[in-house]
Amino acid sequence: MARKVKVGILGAGRIGKLHAENIARFMPDVEIKCIADPMLNEEMKAWAKTINVDNITADPAKVFEDPEIEGVLILSSTDTHARFIIESAKAGKHIFCEKPIDHDLDEINRALSAVEEAGVKLQMGFVRRFDHNHKKVRDVVQSGKIGNPHVIKISSRDPEPPPMEYVKVSGGLFFDMMIHDFDMARYLAGSEVVEVFTNAAVLVDEEIGKAGDVDTAIVTMKFANGAIGVIDNSRASHYGYDQRVEVHGSKGCVQDYNDNVTTATVFTREGVFSDQPKWFFLERYNDAFAAEVVAFIEAIVNDTEPLVGGNDGLQPVLIAEAANISLKEGRPVRIDEL
Amino acid sequence: MARKVKVGILGAGRIGKLHAENIARFMPDVEIKCIADPMLNEEMKAWAKTINVDNITADPAKVFEDPEIEGVLILSSTDTHARFIIESAKAGKHIFCEKPIDHDLDEINRALSAVEEAGVKLQMGFVRRFDHNHKKVRDVVQSGKIGNPHVIKISSRDPEPPPMEYVKVSGGLFFDMMIHDFDMARYLAGSEVVEVFTNAAVLVDEEIGKAGDVDTAIVTMKFANGAIGVIDNSRASHYGYDQRVEVHGSKGCVQDYNDNVTTATVFTREGVFSDQPKWFFLERYNDAFAAEVVAFIEAIVNDTEPLVGGNDGLQPVLIAEAANISLKEGRPVRIDEL
Amino acid sequence: MARKVKVGILGAGRIGKLHAENIARFMPDVEIKCIADPMLNEEMKAWAKTINVDNITADPAKVFEDPEIEGVLILSSTDTHARFIIESAKAGKHIFCEKPIDHDLDEINRALSAVEEAGVKLQMGFVRRFDHNHKKVRDVVQSGKIGNPHVIKISSRDPEPPPMEYVKVSGGLFFDMMIHDFDMARYLAGSEVVEVFTNAAVLVDEEIGKAGDVDTAIVTMKFANGAIGVIDNSRASHYGYDQRVEVHGSKGCVQDYNDNVTTATVFTREGVFSDQPKWFFLERYNDAFAAEVVAFIEAIVNDTEPLVGGNDGLQPVLIAEAANISLKEGRPVRIDEL
Amino acid sequence: MARKVKVGILGAGRIGKLHAENIARFMPDVEIKCIADPMLNEEMKAWAKTINVDNITADPAKVFEDPEIEGVLILSSTDTHARFIIESAKAGKHIFCEKPIDHDLDEINRALSAVEEAGVKLQMGFVRRFDHNHKKVRDVVQSGKIGNPHVIKISSRDPEPPPMEYVKVSGGLFFDMMIHDFDMARYLAGSEVVEVFTNAAVLVDEEIGKAGDVDTAIVTMKFANGAIGVIDNSRASHYGYDQRVEVHGSKGCVQDYNDNVTTATVFTREGVFSDQPKWFFLERYNDAFAAEVVAFIEAIVNDTEPLVGGNDGLQPVLIAEAANISLKEGRPVRIDEL
Repeated sequence: MARKVKVGILGAGRIGKLHAENIARFMPDVEIKCIADPMLNEEMKAWAKTINVDNITADPAKVFEDPEIEGVLILSSTDTHARFIIESAKAGKHIFCEKPIDHDLDEINRALSAVEEAGVKLQMGFVRRFDHNHKKVRDVVQSGKIGNPHVIKISSRDPEPPPMEYVKVSGGLFFDMMIHDFDMARYLAGSEVVEVFTNAAVLVDEEIGKAGDVDTAIVTMKFANGAIGVIDNSRASHYGYDQRVEVHGSKGCVQDYNDNVTTATVFTREGVFSDQPKWFFLERYNDAFAAEVVAFIEAIVNDTEPLVGGNDGLQPVLIAEAANISLKEGRPVRIDEL
Repeated sequence: MARKVKVGILGAGRIGKLHAENIARFMPDVEIKCIADPMLNEEMKAWAKTINVDNITADPAKVFEDPEIEGVLILSSTDTHARFIIESAKAGKHIFCEKPIDHDLDEINRALSAVEEAGVKLQMGFVRRFDHNHKKVRDVVQSGKIGNPHVIKISSRDPEPPPMEYVKVSGGLFFDMMIHDFDMARYLAGSEVVEVFTNAAVLVDEEIGKAGDVDTAIVTMKFANGAIGVIDNSRASHYGYDQRVEVHGSKGCVQDYNDNVTTATVFTREGVFSDQPKWFFLERYNDAFAAEVVAFIEAIVNDTEPLVGGNDGLQPVLIAEAANISLKEGRPVRIDEL
Repeated sequence: MARKVKVGILGAGRIGKLHAENIARFMPDVEIKCIADPMLNEEMKAWAKTINVDNITADPAKVFEDPEIEGVLILSSTDTHARFIIESAKAGKHIFCEKPIDHDLDEINRALSAVEEAGVKLQMGFVRRFDHNHKKVRDVVQSGKIGNPHVIKISSRDPEPPPMEYVKVSGGLFFDMMIHDFDMARYLAGSEVVEVFTNAAVLVDEEIGKAGDVDTAIVTMKFANGAIGVIDNSRASHYGYDQRVEVHGSKGCVQDYNDNVTTATVFTREGVFSDQPKWFFLERYNDAFAAEVVAFIEAIVNDTEPLVGGNDGLQPVLIAEAANISLKEGRPVRIDEL
Repeated sequence: MARKVKVGILGAGRIGKLHAENIARFMPDVEIKCIADPMLNEEMKAWAKTINVDNITADPAKVFEDPEIEGVLILSSTDTHARFIIESAKAGKHIFCEKPIDHDLDEINRALSAVEEAGVKLQMGFVRRFDHNHKKVRDVVQSGKIGNPHVIKISSRDPEPPPMEYVKVSGGLFFDMMIHDFDMARYLAGSEVVEVFTNAAVLVDEEIGKAGDVDTAIVTMKFANGAIGVIDNSRASHYGYDQRVEVHGSKGCVQDYNDNVTTATVFTREGVFSDQPKWFFLERYNDAFAAEVVAFIEAIVNDTEPLVGGNDGLQPVLIAEAANISLKEGRPVRIDEL
């Protein structure tokens, strides 16, 4: 990065702090000019000091109004994303936004229109694209080493379910969890999903079912390029964060495996014992969280297209909606029905 | 095995020879009393001598009529299976039969009725149940170590497609290839499949499509015990016989990996290079072919139920038929519709 | 193999039976004309029948005198090897001999001279050269992919110690166990060992120490081509037969790993559990035992040099002797001192 | 950490910058009060600003004189270590010192005496003890899961040799490279090395030999607790930083493997291709460099013994010296000869 870039951050919750600390630690050419969170409290102020940010406020307008700020990181709750995108765009600022833009298609379209009108960049926070393993899989596919993609397979299992209060407001498994895999599927296939079919159940926790959601799901997909695919999700693996992808093509296949806590392995008369996959997303995607922000800053500095753009914000929401309809109606659902 | 068992073999093609040689090599307490193949030729006669079998004939009746023969191995072409089962049963002989019994449900039911009436044992040749890796996965599931099964995942890819002449008479991908995986799914889940949905395509070879078949398929399943599952098949992996299963349960998961040609691994500046999975079923399931016949003989000697019985011959055919209907009609199909 | 080869077998103990059964099962072009064992009993006679060998005798001369017998497999106790080699050679028969020829250098030289004089072939039973994994490692080294060999590393651990009666007559760890690794070291390095240094201890069982032997040893080597190497042995791994080799060269390295019982792996909150290496040499080197005899027969039929010849019988004995001296005298010992 | 700790850093070269950045990034409760480097230049000053350190000086006395500084990190060139330890100790400051203290035993003893007299803490920078994989191996050994240690095996290979200018002043392979493995051997065995034997060669680069050094070495060890061990080193693996340890004990063994760049694996007709081990120590021991400083700070705050103390600074130097003598004199050398 050839020059300093000043950014503003909206949201100082877990993910806001994570990104802010990554910038402070690893990006000497990026300056956090302002952090805004309507829930501002003393703890947040103290934290901001530890990363040498003095300017922390409850008022997001402070970010939009600051003419020195080139980029805004929208790391606040989902219900604020579309609105903050529009305000950032109007203020002429480039935007990094955590997924999803919104659950409502009209809101998404309004936000994307504002971005397009303003001519600013929008990068969506699909962090898994920046995971060293998944990215290498994608690079191998792109290189042609395995030929044309035929089958995309994605396994994604959380170690344990979120609290029920979260489940209730999460938007459901497809919008909250599998949305990442829908993005990954498109990324790996290099093609859009055109149809999905959902096979899902409540197997982990009956309470999740009572809340109207499922906790275990297999979704099959057809892609525009003729490939087919399948994603399986579970809210509870018990053995750690299970994140594996496979692409089978006309010449071979490429797979990745989980990163484990250590490589140490014990051999005894009782068997062979080794360590589990890293426990959850903060451990597994730790480096990827920094890499996606570095990519955003590079897109600003070099004036290039972000690697994960507006359509990448839209499509996974469409697929998630189709997966929900498929579940309810027990039939395959085409994306263009929506 | 406490006593000698005399068997007759119907069919001296590839699979017939394989089983006969395994008996001759590894089962000193089993005597092949007679081999019958209507295509009997000099080569077959010469081969029979190498395994010390003098009595090879073109007439299957010679097997049914021999009062010393306790068990019959039906290793002939699929169209003869149901008929030979009925004749063996009438002759009071225990039966080992290569899959499938037939593609026609009425034929299957006639064969199973004959078996039941005669009170003989019937073991179906679903050889993968005897694979050391898959069997261990099943044993782990049975042990309760991973809790109740939630998700069954099976990958099954042939290294390269069969000749087009074979494809045309094979009964199609679901009856010829995935039928093994349908059996494996039931075996691992410990429960019957109640519904399937098919997502399939012609991606490997257009000629297969012209013959009215598919070459790449993902089938999702619902099981009677609430579990869900998915199988993916391809006619061409290019890297060897890809045969992996996973069961995810309420406490964890169990997976197996392929057996590779060797464990030797080369590390250079260019990368890390290792060997492929064993090339095809003869290499991978070599030991399992002997193990399934040993189990059949043990069931005779100990008068126990065969590990793979008549219903195991029926169910995979029902599921394959449902998968075909799902493909044609683009909807999930319940097994009890058939 | 273009023609039938008739062989005689000396010794019907564990290893004699193993080779005889392999011939009977897998080598239709090889006929066992006669088996001789001075301890001949009813059990051996009954066993011989199961592999269709009628001619079993207590008198080894029956083998040497039979003009139809082309090859002799010497599978009797070590103290008979040199004598039987000499008698076989005098009778003009090709020889397959279990390692070692003898512990006495004069005896070995007498045997090798007899072989040379008679112009017969001698193949030593260093079975590990025929293991699929180790052979692949050697093939990679030979191919030049890793450049010139720099460092040879061999790990070899038995699952548990032999009975003390065996330990006492075994010739000691270096002659009984590490002798295989000395052969493997030469095989992988493509060069002779010129010096060894022994670091050994009694750690597994004090009784072994009282018998004048060690049970745990590390021996370093210098090779004629400048490479260096190290072998570690233990009489008790507790987790199975640990048999791994590594060659590091001027461009990279090649390693192999153990073959495990199954590839099934269990993932739970408690950890990741998988299967051990195959338990002992009969499991791990099962296929290699057949492969080495096939190679011997091929050398006869094609009139080629055996892959493991007379010098391969001599050198490991020299190295074992040097390792013993090094242990006693606490200094590096050159092979040419002997 | 319950309270703020102020530290001074001596040396702003590669390793000095690494530790300073780690403190700035990951240790909010540690303040770098002063950095001193006699080679102070503009680049260093600019760098210090990026981590918010204003006080950078050419004069080490500024560190010793500052009463607020509790701990000193000695990250300067080896020839200054002993002197700076003594000055830090006299100033009553706790000391973190990069290995080695010195190559001269008298210097080391003078430094250790000064530390003891002053009653300050000394932690040596043997970073590998803080590697997640090696640490887990040690934890397993300590837990008793594999019983008493019998054999310690360490492989350590740099990807490529350092520049010849460095080789010439490095102190040689045993002082520069294998010294880490000598420490690791003691750490894993839980016992002191009492004797070594060296088998070494010049195989990677003749220039290294001309400089009087070796580039490939195998050193065997005897430990005070009866265990034996072996280390192999090479200056050039070509495939990355090869860092593996194994401990075999009376009940089983524990091993670790390298961390690889990614887990992505490509399967094609040509073979199976995966990524190499991480390239060098900065990649592999990245997290461990931060962890060792965190441990140092914790020892200060909690007033506990450092995990790597003064004797840990002394012993590896003694072993390296013995390994050098063994190489020159071609005989095993006892540590107590020195």
